[in-house]
Amino acid sequence: MSQSVHRTDVVIVGAGPVGLFAVFECGMLKMRCHVVDALDMVGGQCTALYPEKPIYDIPAHPAIEAAALIDRLAEQAAPFAPTYHLGQQVEKLTRTDEGRWLVETNKGVQIDAKAVIIAAGCGAFGPNRPPLDGLEGFEGTSVFYMVRRRQDFAGKRVVIAGGGDSAVDWALSLSEVAEKVSLVHRRAKFRAAPESVARLDALAREGKIEMVVPYQLAGLEGADGQLTAVRVATLDGEEKAVPADAMLAFFGLSMNLGPIADWGLNLERSHIAVSLPGCATSAPGIFAIGDIATYPGKLKLILCGFSEAAQAAHAIHPMVHPGEALHFEYSTSKGVPGA
Amino acid sequence: MSQSVHRTDVVIVGAGPVGLFAVFECGMLKMRCHVVDALDMVGGQCTALYPEKPIYDIPAHPAIEAAALIDRLAEQAAPFAPTYHLGQQVEKLTRTDEGRWLVETNKGVQIDAKAVIIAAGCGAFGPNRPPLDGLEGFEGTSVFYMVRRRQDFAGKRVVIAGGGDSAVDWALSLSEVAEKVSLVHRRAKFRAAPESVARLDALAREGKIEMVVPYQLAGLEGADGQLTAVRVATLDGEEKAVPADAMLAFFGLSMNLGPIADWGLNLERSHIAVSLPGCATSAPGIFAIGDIATYPGKLKLILCGFSEAAQAAHAIHPMVHPGEALHFEYSTSKGVPGA
Repeated sequence: MSQSVHRTDVVIVGAGPVGLFAVFECGMLKMRCHVVDALDMVGGQCTALYPEKPIYDIPAHPAIEAAALIDRLAEQAAPFAPTYHLGQQVEKLTRTDEGRWLVETNKGVQIDAKAVIIAAGCGAFGPNRPPLDGLEGFEGTSVFYMVRRRQDFAGKRVVIAGGGDSAVDWALSLSEVAEKVSLVHRRAKFRAAPESVARLDALAREGKIEMVVPYQLAGLEGADGQLTAVRVATLDGEEKAVPADAMLAFFGLSMNLGPIADWGLNLERSHIAVSLPGCATSAPGIFAIGDIATYPGKLKLILCGFSEAAQAAHAIHPMVHPGEALHFEYSTSKGVPGA
Repeated sequence: MSQSVHRTDVVIVGAGPVGLFAVFECGMLKMRCHVVDALDMVGGQCTALYPEKPIYDIPAHPAIEAAALIDRLAEQAAPFAPTYHLGQQVEKLTRTDEGRWLVETNKGVQIDAKAVIIAAGCGAFGPNRPPLDGLEGFEGTSVFYMVRRRQDFAGKRVVIAGGGDSAVDWALSLSEVAEKVSLVHRRAKFRAAPESVARLDALAREGKIEMVVPYQLAGLEGADGQLTAVRVATLDGEEKAVPADAMLAFFGLSMNLGPIADWGLNLERSHIAVSLPGCATSAPGIFAIGDIATYPGKLKLILCGFSEAAQAAHAIHPMVHPGEALHFEYSTSKGVPGA
């Protein structure tokens, strides 16, 4: 596999807003980057969790939707031609004999770099998955944790599991296109906007939504990735099967540092401790910026992460280009990046 | 005069990009601001020196002209209704018995505030003025240091003094509308683009521009603000008068800390030394951010100044709202600012 090892200046772990801006800052200092992210798209939480939510505190953007913020940052990084390795997690970081770092992902990608910038936000995150036997076999074909296109559920019998806003709002929405919507929740009470709960009650009375309460998920029936029914049970153990072509489970998201916790870096309450200036971690050549990094007075703001990206890039520059003076100039005098 | 003292939470000295963003950050933390700037418009150097120059390293703005950057920042600050005191310099900072600061400008404005953020860039800056007797009497009426509208010089006899790009380019441009353009420079050689110098030579040969070289300015003739002639002299002392209705002098810009140097703050090579986090100066309640502030590893980038503005605002919050917990949230959950 050694013939397929990429060699670059900097590996950036995390393609959220701060990771993307780190590509730009490294590029301005003539350092090439590879970027690894667990999600299969750039943007981190901005893209995956709240793409249409406006953000008000990005400087010189009085309001910008999260997805648009990511588009602009990716566009700004593009002239420096970063290589993205998406849909995979960094599993191993190994110091090489050359004093560089070998970064290995769970998909077998290997990248040899002079420095690593960890911009991993809250760590890898994903939906909480219900503990059901055989769940993996249905995921992505008839069990889902988000709705990409409402029309995918047209004419289907859909079981929605959960008791919060997502479960209630999607039950309301899909009841307009699905053949049948069944809402499974372990209690009769929902943690959702009162207005939505009132609409849910009305649709339930009209028979447009089947209320399966108080039940919780107990099992899945079907074969070859195709669900035929969802089994549910009360706390007393009374069980029944709800016929279904698809299930949507909304049990929230969880985040965890994942393998990052095993890299031997100094941690403080699930964050990586860095020192200023430069955001260096306790390991030589490894830096951390953005929400995952902590130091006295740290503010978890995207705009502060941008500044940390600039600081890390400047700290890495002498490692990648030793002895080369950094002609530090105002941005306006540098001309078009990448030109 | 005490009845006209303004009372506010924070005084921001400097209305450049970083000062404007400090208004926003203070506003997000429910702190009111007054802003003082020596220029008669917001934006600092961005507006005064290079409004049309694109900037490439503002995060999520792949390219933005300096003037547009200022427009967006002013718009972002506007919901918090800052009070601007433009065209005046802060002259005095005095600690009050209440443990607050009294800020006084050279136009007699007095502002009593809990904290002061100095975001004064390179300090006050302005054109280098030639040392001519009676100069003040002509400034703004027939002696100028910049061209606001080319048409103001139509049909006039204009003396242009200087040997750089500005002098040469304006001589070329105004020769198309002025009755006569005379270019005064102490040498026959100009520090300007070769292409421009070639055009200058051609226009001089055609008699469209009078070359007054090697001469330097020696005096002004006229009365009541109206110039009639500019006196020039060689190094040998040979003097003559060049008839003129207006003079444009292009001798560059100079910057200086001005009164800031007298406020007793710790300085390091014309910058204010601050400590992280929070950008506090050596005086309690006085903070410095942006290009005027220095600390180990400081990068003079606008985007780092934005982060410093956020840090200073968070450091000031407990002074303005003592005992009030800061519910620190991601920006997306705060809703529309100022609403």
